[in-house]
This record gives sequence, structure tokens and C-alpha cells, in this order.
Amino acid sequence: MLATVLHGPGDVRYEDVAEPKILKPTDAIIKLSATCICGSDLWPYRGASPVTAPQHMGHEYCGVVVEVGSAVQTVKPGQFVVGSFATSDNVCPHCQYGFHSSCEQREFMSGAQAPYARVPNADGTLLATAEHPADDLLPSLLAVSDVLGTGWFAADAAGVQPGSTVAVVGDGAVGLMGVLAAKQMGAERIIAMSRHPSRQQLALEYGATDIVTERGDAGVAAIRALTRNVGADAVLECVGTNESMHQAINAARPGGAIGFVGVPHGVELKGEFLFFSQKRLLGGPAPVRRFLPELIDLVLTRQINPGKVFDLELPIADVAKGYRAMDERRAIKTLLRV
Amino acid sequence: MLATVLHGPGDVRYEDVAEPKILKPTDAIIKLSATCICGSDLWPYRGASPVTAPQHMGHEYCGVVVEVGSAVQTVKPGQFVVGSFATSDNVCPHCQYGFHSSCEQREFMSGAQAPYARVPNADGTLLATAEHPADDLLPSLLAVSDVLGTGWFAADAAGVQPGSTVAVVGDGAVGLMGVLAAKQMGAERIIAMSRHPSRQQLALEYGATDIVTERGDAGVAAIRALTRNVGADAVLECVGTNESMHQAINAARPGGAIGFVGVPHGVELKGEFLFFSQKRLLGGPAPVRRFLPELIDLVLTRQINPGKVFDLELPIADVAKGYRAMDERRAIKTLLRV
Repeated sequence: MLATVLHGPGDVRYEDVAEPKILKPTDAIIKLSATCICGSDLWPYRGASPVTAPQHMGHEYCGVVVEVGSAVQTVKPGQFVVGSFATSDNVCPHCQYGFHSSCEQREFMSGAQAPYARVPNADGTLLATAEHPADDLLPSLLAVSDVLGTGWFAADAAGVQPGSTVAVVGDGAVGLMGVLAAKQMGAERIIAMSRHPSRQQLALEYGATDIVTERGDAGVAAIRALTRNVGADAVLECVGTNESMHQAINAARPGGAIGFVGVPHGVELKGEFLFFSQKRLLGGPAPVRRFLPELIDLVLTRQINPGKVFDLELPIADVAKGYRAMDERRAIKTLLRV
Repeated sequence: MLATVLHGPGDVRYEDVAEPKILKPTDAIIKLSATCICGSDLWPYRGASPVTAPQHMGHEYCGVVVEVGSAVQTVKPGQFVVGSFATSDNVCPHCQYGFHSSCEQREFMSGAQAPYARVPNADGTLLATAEHPADDLLPSLLAVSDVLGTGWFAADAAGVQPGSTVAVVGDGAVGLMGVLAAKQMGAERIIAMSRHPSRQQLALEYGATDIVTERGDAGVAAIRALTRNVGADAVLECVGTNESMHQAINAARPGGAIGFVGVPHGVELKGEFLFFSQKRLLGGPAPVRRFLPELIDLVLTRQINPGKVFDLELPIADVAKGYRAMDERRAIKTLLRV
């Protein structure tokens, strides 16, 4: 089959690869209904993460099961499923604590920018819907598997609750999903940090109450000015640079929390800084599996529309165009039709 | 009067200084009933924090009010009071959120290794007892003002709750108070990391269920071996070095929490490490004021005996001996009789 392979910085190809096969009895093979490009795919695309061998790209997915391994019990061929980018057995102690992305059996998904993909740990990873969803819901169900689940975890990790004042650092797709999540969790005030009019507009649609265009110290000062010089209760860090992480920490009030989900690149935190800041920190790869039932339900009942974050749609053969558009910030997030 | 002054590394003198005076209408002057030496006093004593000018030492205190400024309303001369090492107004937003140690009016106490001391923000900082306490309770009431309050905050910040598995990194006075706090909060298992028999003994008296003598990676492996390879729910970091901080983070399970109260010296945390560890972090100078009512009550009703952590008692004129004994780890904590 044809699939997406990254050969080096800027060099994405849609090319012939071996079809995925059941490798373990706990695997499933799915036919993708749609797939997409993640902001984190841009790290290796931009050369910020090393590419030492051709990488089969793609970890966001929803689709129909076509084959299952002999040990798989909860999903079967023909069912429509959604899963997490981090696969999990859903039974180990870490899964039971809700940290599926640290599952003892964890394997990160790969190769999902393709017509077919292998899903390890199928029983613990995939959730089947009662029936095949309407086509117009596919973008939102696809979003659940990573970008929404990650924005949701940022808000969960930052302890957003009814009445919270929330700041969101980063106006990429994850940051916008963080706005949506904070709204769903009852935040009273949601300050989106964004300098791009189209992203500001979507942030406002998703529930942002204020927009701050400044960054760094000026951004922190703007947050303070909006919060009686106190700082935000919860800050969602959705970028992953050293500057954005420090901006996020400084934007929270003492005792406030930072949920950080931007994959860190070059972030270094000094102990004294953390100590005297008195901020709560929790981050990491989102345990999307914990949130799957609730998020799928919110989508199927049309209470949320995370799929709107896809502002570019391409046939998967044009995947390289999709990377380029996101790299140049012409697109927030690219959906690939399979 | 005579008081304790640090002139440089290793050079502590009990010498003539000016008596403390009311400087602001919100100040109080207290006559110390007892005072003591803090583990954090050893940082400048050992030259690990710079000493650029003579420092008036001491920030732990309890005693009798002798004078109050014109704005002070809640305490009056003659009352016995306990306060926090970090003074606070108890009304600003940070205080209302329970983070008194980030109070907008915060001043850290100093000069309390002396017969008299000035307490800024007296109304928001000091709590008066209904009557003067029995002499044998003075060490425990003194402990409340910092060492117990700090160990308590470590447990609170790490989210210790009934049934928790807790690890305590550091067997100094704060670590031992962390054991006591975890026990009071209902922890089921409390693993004290200590290699000193006398400190192990006190940890066991305070509620430790297990002792781990290894440090670093070996210490983490020992914690894992005791917890089905999962890690602790809550880890109390009570040292402040880079090694101890990493040991604490690695000893927690994914989703577990580290309450860090050892003043960090040379601690650096990589973003990737924090991200993939998925641990919660909260630390800083303890907001002791939040805990004062509960802790004073526990002491006065003799439910806890934190004063036992003082294993050396000296007349304050011998304060230099007390520093030496703690520096050489011959004493856990030195009480100074005024």
C-alpha cells in the first residue's frame, strides 16, 4: 500500500510500504476512515527531533476494524473504533490510576497516515461505537484520538473546574482544544494567548473570553492585568518551548497549576524558580484512553465540534502539502482523506 | 541585647545587637520562649548560599507578645503566640487561596535566634493560644512555626490521603515531620529513606512502616520493589539537592505527586524528563499559616509530639555549638533556650 514516510527534515513522501500485519495476538488492523497531521509531527519535519531512519508517520486515527489477533476480545471486524495515540492494556496499575499513557504495555502508535494501520493492545486501546457514525462526525471523532484528548488532559492536569480562570499558552490545534476543554469543564474565564486572527476567532467560538496577543514577560503582564495581579488558576501549556513553559508557569498564581502537553524541546527548569513560584505542574503524553468514553459521547451527541479545528482537508496522496501548510502556519491542522 | 549573627561560613557569633523595635504599625515584638536552628540555616553556614553581610539568624519562634504596633488588633501584650517563618497578612488573594507564603505583604522572619524578635504582619501571622501553654509543650509549639509546618506542607502538596503509599526523601528534621504528617493524614504505608539508625528509630516512632537505606537509583529501585514496581503515590522531598529531587521524582508512580520543601540548591529539571515521567510537582516555602490552627490544636491536645525532633538542647549563648552539631550531623535539630 501507499503510506506516509518521513525521510528527513522537510522530506515527506507518500510511497509504497508493506501492509500492516498482526504481529501480536493483542493487535488489531484497522482501515482508517480519516487521518491527520499532528503538531508534534512538525518537530522531526523541522529537524528539531533527529530523523535517523525513515519514519512511518501518523498516530491519530479512527476507522473500521478489519482483522484482530487471537487474544482480542472486545472489538471485532466491522466495528467502527476510536483509540488513543498511546496504546494501553487498560488493566495495569498505571491504567487503573488513569495514566494509560504510562501503561506497562504502552506502545506509541505509528504509521497511521495510511489507509491501514496496526493498533497494538487493541482491547485496552480501542473503543467501538454502537453503530457507524455519520460522515460529518468523522473529523471530530478523529480529533478525539489525540488533539482533543491532549487539550482535555491539559485542562484536567491543570485542575480546571467550574469558576476557574484559565490561560491557554499556544494557539495551535491543541491549544484550541484546550479552550474547548476548559469551557466544558466550567471555566468562567478563558484567556487565549494568540496573535493570529483566524485562531483567535476559533478560540472565541470554542469559549475563550479574552485574547492576549503579547508573549513572554509582556504576555504574563497582560494575564496579571486581567486577574487583579493574581495570575490564572490554571494554565494550559500547549507549545513545548523553554519560553512558552516559563510563560505558562509565570502566568499562574501561587498554588495554581500548569498542565503541560506541548512536547518539550530545550525546556530547563531551575529548582529555585519552581520553589519560589509555588506552582503545581503536571504534564506528559495525554492518557487519552481515560477520557475516550466521555469525549466520544460528547461528539456523537453533537455537544462539541472539535473537528472544526481542521481548516485544511486534503486527499492523503497530498500529505506533503499538508505538512508544508502546517509548517508555514497556513493551516492549523490538516485532515487527510483516505 | 545579645543575638545570633552569621559573619561568614562557619562563623556564628552570639553578640551584641540593637534591640528589635516596631518599624511599621503592623509589627509586633515578642519575647521568645524558645528558638532553634533550621536545616536551611546550614546552607549559608556551609557557604552553599553566599553571606555578603552579617546575617541576623533565626526564623522559628514562639513566645509572648511584649509590644504591638498601632494597627495590630488580634494579638496583644501578654499573649502567647505562634507564627510562621513567612509572615503574611492573611487577607490578600494568595492568602485566601491558602498560599500565605506568597502573600503580597510577605516578609520572611529573621533574627529569631535571640531573646526578642520583631514579627511583621502580626495580625495575619500570629495565633494566640487561650492560655500560656505548659513548658513541656514549648518544643512542639516551636516546631509548628516551621519544621512541622514544612513537613506538613510537603505531605499536603504531595496529596497524601487515607490509604496512600508515601516515600520520604531526607531524614533531617523536616523529613521526620513529613513522616508524622503523612501518618496524621492517614497514609497506609510510609517509606522513610534513611541511613542513620537514630533517625530511622524516630521515623518509625512517627509512623514509618518501612526504611530504605539506599539512595539515588538504588533507592528508587528499593521503592519500586516495595510497591509492585509501581512507585509511591506521594513523595516528600525534604533535602533540596539535584540528586534528591530526581530521586524523589523517580520514586513516584505516573500520576503520583512530589511535594518538595527542601530549599533547592543546584536543582535543574529537564522538560523531557518531567514530561515523560508524568509526575505532579508542587513545592516551595510552606504556607504554615494555613495549617497553624490545626497544628497548634494537635499539639495542645497532645495528639502529636513534634518537639521530639529536638535531640540537642543548649542555652542560646552556646548557639555556635548547636550549628556545629547539626553541620556534623551529630544532632537532628537544636533547640535553644532563651
